[in-house]
Amino acid sequence: MLKIALLGCGRIGRLHAHIVASNPGSRLAAVFDPVPEAAVAISNAHGVKTVDNAEAIFSDGEIDAVIVASATQTHSDFIEQAVRAGKPVLCEKPIDLDIERVRTCQAAIADSDVPIQIGFNRRFDPGHRELRDAVVKGEIGNLLQLIITSRDPAPPTYDYLRSAGGILRDMTIHDFDIARFVLAGDEPVEVFAAANALIDPSIASDPGDNDCTMVLMRSASGRQVLINNARQAKYGYDQRIEALGTEGMLQSSNRTPNGILRFGTNLTAGGTGYENFFIERYQEAFRLQWDAFLAAVSAGKTPEVGFNDGYEALRLAEAAYESLRSGRTVSLSGQ
Amino acid sequence: MLKIALLGCGRIGRLHAHIVASNPGSRLAAVFDPVPEAAVAISNAHGVKTVDNAEAIFSDGEIDAVIVASATQTHSDFIEQAVRAGKPVLCEKPIDLDIERVRTCQAAIADSDVPIQIGFNRRFDPGHRELRDAVVKGEIGNLLQLIITSRDPAPPTYDYLRSAGGILRDMTIHDFDIARFVLAGDEPVEVFAAANALIDPSIASDPGDNDCTMVLMRSASGRQVLINNARQAKYGYDQRIEALGTEGMLQSSNRTPNGILRFGTNLTAGGTGYENFFIERYQEAFRLQWDAFLAAVSAGKTPEVGFNDGYEALRLAEAAYESLRSGRTVSLSGQ
Amino acid sequence: MLKIALLGCGRIGRLHAHIVASNPGSRLAAVFDPVPEAAVAISNAHGVKTVDNAEAIFSDGEIDAVIVASATQTHSDFIEQAVRAGKPVLCEKPIDLDIERVRTCQAAIADSDVPIQIGFNRRFDPGHRELRDAVVKGEIGNLLQLIITSRDPAPPTYDYLRSAGGILRDMTIHDFDIARFVLAGDEPVEVFAAANALIDPSIASDPGDNDCTMVLMRSASGRQVLINNARQAKYGYDQRIEALGTEGMLQSSNRTPNGILRFGTNLTAGGTGYENFFIERYQEAFRLQWDAFLAAVSAGKTPEVGFNDGYEALRLAEAAYESLRSGRTVSLSGQ
Amino acid sequence: MLKIALLGCGRIGRLHAHIVASNPGSRLAAVFDPVPEAAVAISNAHGVKTVDNAEAIFSDGEIDAVIVASATQTHSDFIEQAVRAGKPVLCEKPIDLDIERVRTCQAAIADSDVPIQIGFNRRFDPGHRELRDAVVKGEIGNLLQLIITSRDPAPPTYDYLRSAGGILRDMTIHDFDIARFVLAGDEPVEVFAAANALIDPSIASDPGDNDCTMVLMRSASGRQVLINNARQAKYGYDQRIEALGTEGMLQSSNRTPNGILRFGTNLTAGGTGYENFFIERYQEAFRLQWDAFLAAVSAGKTPEVGFNDGYEALRLAEAAYESLRSGRTVSLSGQ
Repeated sequence: MLKIALLGCGRIGRLHAHIVASNPGSRLAAVFDPVPEAAVAISNAHGVKTVDNAEAIFSDGEIDAVIVASATQTHSDFIEQAVRAGKPVLCEKPIDLDIERVRTCQAAIADSDVPIQIGFNRRFDPGHRELRDAVVKGEIGNLLQLIITSRDPAPPTYDYLRSAGGILRDMTIHDFDIARFVLAGDEPVEVFAAANALIDPSIASDPGDNDCTMVLMRSASGRQVLINNARQAKYGYDQRIEALGTEGMLQSSNRTPNGILRFGTNLTAGGTGYENFFIERYQEAFRLQWDAFLAAVSAGKTPEVGFNDGYEALRLAEAAYESLRSGRTVSLSGQ
Repeated sequence: MLKIALLGCGRIGRLHAHIVASNPGSRLAAVFDPVPEAAVAISNAHGVKTVDNAEAIFSDGEIDAVIVASATQTHSDFIEQAVRAGKPVLCEKPIDLDIERVRTCQAAIADSDVPIQIGFNRRFDPGHRELRDAVVKGEIGNLLQLIITSRDPAPPTYDYLRSAGGILRDMTIHDFDIARFVLAGDEPVEVFAAANALIDPSIASDPGDNDCTMVLMRSASGRQVLINNARQAKYGYDQRIEALGTEGMLQSSNRTPNGILRFGTNLTAGGTGYENFFIERYQEAFRLQWDAFLAAVSAGKTPEVGFNDGYEALRLAEAAYESLRSGRTVSLSGQ
Repeated sequence: MLKIALLGCGRIGRLHAHIVASNPGSRLAAVFDPVPEAAVAISNAHGVKTVDNAEAIFSDGEIDAVIVASATQTHSDFIEQAVRAGKPVLCEKPIDLDIERVRTCQAAIADSDVPIQIGFNRRFDPGHRELRDAVVKGEIGNLLQLIITSRDPAPPTYDYLRSAGGILRDMTIHDFDIARFVLAGDEPVEVFAAANALIDPSIASDPGDNDCTMVLMRSASGRQVLINNARQAKYGYDQRIEALGTEGMLQSSNRTPNGILRFGTNLTAGGTGYENFFIERYQEAFRLQWDAFLAAVSAGKTPEVGFNDGYEALRLAEAAYESLRSGRTVSLSGQ
Repeated sequence: MLKIALLGCGRIGRLHAHIVASNPGSRLAAVFDPVPEAAVAISNAHGVKTVDNAEAIFSDGEIDAVIVASATQTHSDFIEQAVRAGKPVLCEKPIDLDIERVRTCQAAIADSDVPIQIGFNRRFDPGHRELRDAVVKGEIGNLLQLIITSRDPAPPTYDYLRSAGGILRDMTIHDFDIARFVLAGDEPVEVFAAANALIDPSIASDPGDNDCTMVLMRSASGRQVLINNARQAKYGYDQRIEALGTEGMLQSSNRTPNGILRFGTNLTAGGTGYENFFIERYQEAFRLQWDAFLAAVSAGKTPEVGFNDGYEALRLAEAAYESLRSGRTVSLSGQ
């Protein structure tokens, strides 16, 4: 039974708190948030203490591991502090919006073997994982093409967009990681990106972002990968992976909240909308991600999704932005 | 190249004329209908002669085979005449609404080996047939339960209902045959039926019919069969078979006129309506039925769907009506 | 926060204990099982006390409500004791295998207003409930036909069968209740049943049961209902409802553990198996059932699924057995 | 009733001959092929004359219109001859593999108003067309992203590949046209392409082609279009279009030869393979394409799919090849 501290008590923090509390292998022991009300809410719900500053957590000998679910710009600092304190850490993505900061963090923790897991929860979605495992086992022969579709139900606020780092760092980052997950070592080496503000053209000037993007990548062995993202899908949160191989195809498709199908005039077998958003769609993935973290920490093993995965996904986002600027394929070589 | 005469030039007659003309193994040579305008329409469309009476067809040495698509009460007479004339016949279902007339017809043709095929076209539907063949081959182990769903898009006219012989003889007759087709020799021996006028309650008194029915049958070996019919399905002509076996399940499901799927607010993957009605849904079945008839006649073989199949389906309808009257299971023994 | 005692610590008891513990509105306070090891297992897992006899629970002023998840023959006694003690009770189905015992229990509690909820959890399945609510709201016009499919993945043991009361009381009982749920007051008044031992013919003699059944019912207003059950479906636990109305159709279809679809030689869009069995398939329904019980008890309201629903489902099972014996429709009049 | 001559009697020519003969508005009157046996086969099947050279057709006053289904390098010559002879022409795609030849042909016929239709049959597929019409009508709001999937069941022969002009001119050409069809005037102005020989790497050197390609385009208004092609899909000929809009999504999905679904151990609702290849999948589209040609010629109207559409699709293929060479987006401006 590991005693867990939570840094960051917003929406995603509350989800982590609930998962920690529901897991027989972990217990929530302390929470911190610079906004005291946020911390108190979780404190009350779970009957745990709040602390006044993060340092109180890192110096607390009772705490076995920490979850970093705070604002992005604090992630690298907290990772470094956790490593210095010898506390395993599950850190939400991205590590930082500035890849240089990620590199200094990487250097700072280079000599440590404290377990670090980056919160790419989608890797733990049962469907996505079964697809990946089947690809790796050769069920569809040699993988040829990978198409990742990821669309949000509705755009975020302008405030959110202003601090999110751009669609490729904020949204596509998950798909860069899923691409690497399915490619399983055959790393993307070429990136080409297109992006536009089509849903809400006004965001192009301020906050200066796009809301639709397609990224075409090629792996070291020549496999073709397409990611397509949109910030709005009126029919719901759309999360699909399609893998074509020489011997067949696999799709990890959407989940629905119930199995209702409607039939009427000019309508057959119409489903209702999909699971609302990532909290609902990936709730099982979040839970399994936590199982995996606990298992790795308990066994003293390196987590399956490590710091370097966070770094590589960001590298692909950087390459995609460079492609947007240049209108050409950007090649990635060794880091 | 067989020369074919058509008796009966209504809607189903026109379909047969088109199929005969499109098949390289047959040629339409003469048509007859008591309503001259109906005959002339097909005559003009296909450039064939009309005749003034059916006898002119049976005595015409040029005619190799006949299709009986005339009013139901003429079927038995035409079958007997065709047999006397030695002309193979494809006769639309049912043979007659009066099972006694079917028995006298059966007796009258008992000594003949002129090929007779009854128009249970659904047996030739590629999906239904693949289901049946897979069941017979043991793909789902031992067959346990069979559920046949057959619903029309909209009710027929009162005029039609007055001469159709009742829902069980007019509509369920196809499903009785499909049940026997899939059971492949393990004949139904018990029949229980429920029927109601629910869609249009006024038909209960006049024409005196029902529009929803469920028929539960048991085969000689104990397998359970459910047929459900309704005269109205706003989402389209609904034609499905489900076969449960000890090792798996098979469904022969509906066909759609195109592959369009719609996604919108509270809607995912909604199809458009199904193929409009039997002419569209079973057009391939009608065509393959004709191929089978030509192949049997050419090879001098007994057609796969014979007179006795027409008789047995009607026996099941009679048993179902008896069950409606008595409120109990009706047992069928040897004929 | 209601304090809950659990009577019966088998598989279903463990599920209830977990649900009680996870719900912020309830807390598990005591457990009892005649097999001490079973009680201790839950006691340890949840940190609650065990008691030596059921009476200790009913006399415990700290206990706010009880869950009866013990052997069927104890249900009626426990309900009566709970009512005498003034403790609301959620009791697993069936109330008793002997309908006379249910009637004496009914009489014994007739004057009480202690909330009693019978564990027909499937009513709380989001899909089934959405179908029922849509039917009641008239979304498909007037309901015409209802087809309920319920098949277990694999047969139970002979030992289980010997004490289960027969397939119609043990398995179909859920579907009788679902039929009543969807019919929403238009009660079934005619029952016809067929049943066979087809999967394992040897059970016909001992334990003396059947493994495939179809039950055809008619409601007071003439609607047709078909229930089909099988004790084995190799493709998984199959739970479907289909409702045909004058204006459309609704299906509550199966759930899959992930969204994987496979495509290969002669295979397109093949899903993996369904949710394993009722614990997995209806886990959300069990949880929502508990929410509903807590809400009713807290608000002092009569639970939505009451003692009478348990009685009526059993009455339908009795009628179905009578139909099996007589080979005819059994009419149900007022109770 | 138009009298039609067919130039080119290979596989696609036979299909056209059959369609012409089956259509009440047209009659096959003459056929030509440089390989006499090919012409004789169709001549015999349809009872029409063969001629010794194409000129005999263009000078035949009896011929109302011509179909060009001959080798690609003859298309432009035949179009020019047909125009000089004043005979409407339906010409198979592509007009020529050399875009310069297409331009000289375009110049040669510039002053003519003889109807010319290019054989982009997929525009007439009922599903694809319904999708396009719905997009144009605004059913999904403003179109954002378009994903066109087109995969052959198995690679062609090396001989075929040597004369086909490369995957982008031979296979993707259809998808370039479909993209333009759905975009409905919002022309693609940027093209980026990736292509690899992944299925059969040996074709990279000889015939010097690729077998997997992804092409990412942007329209004048910024919409994003992805085409993905593969020369092999073991599960069958895969033809899909997905259109995402601000208000919803539309998919034109695959067709299956029957409605069979299989359920077994670890398998639910598995379909059989799709329609075999383009002859089967697009048979209705070929037929409707011919209807449209006849209607345009009869009404003296310009066909919906004209010479310029053939030219524009080839321009996109040329741009895609240029992108392959340069690794960057290629911009198309006015022609």
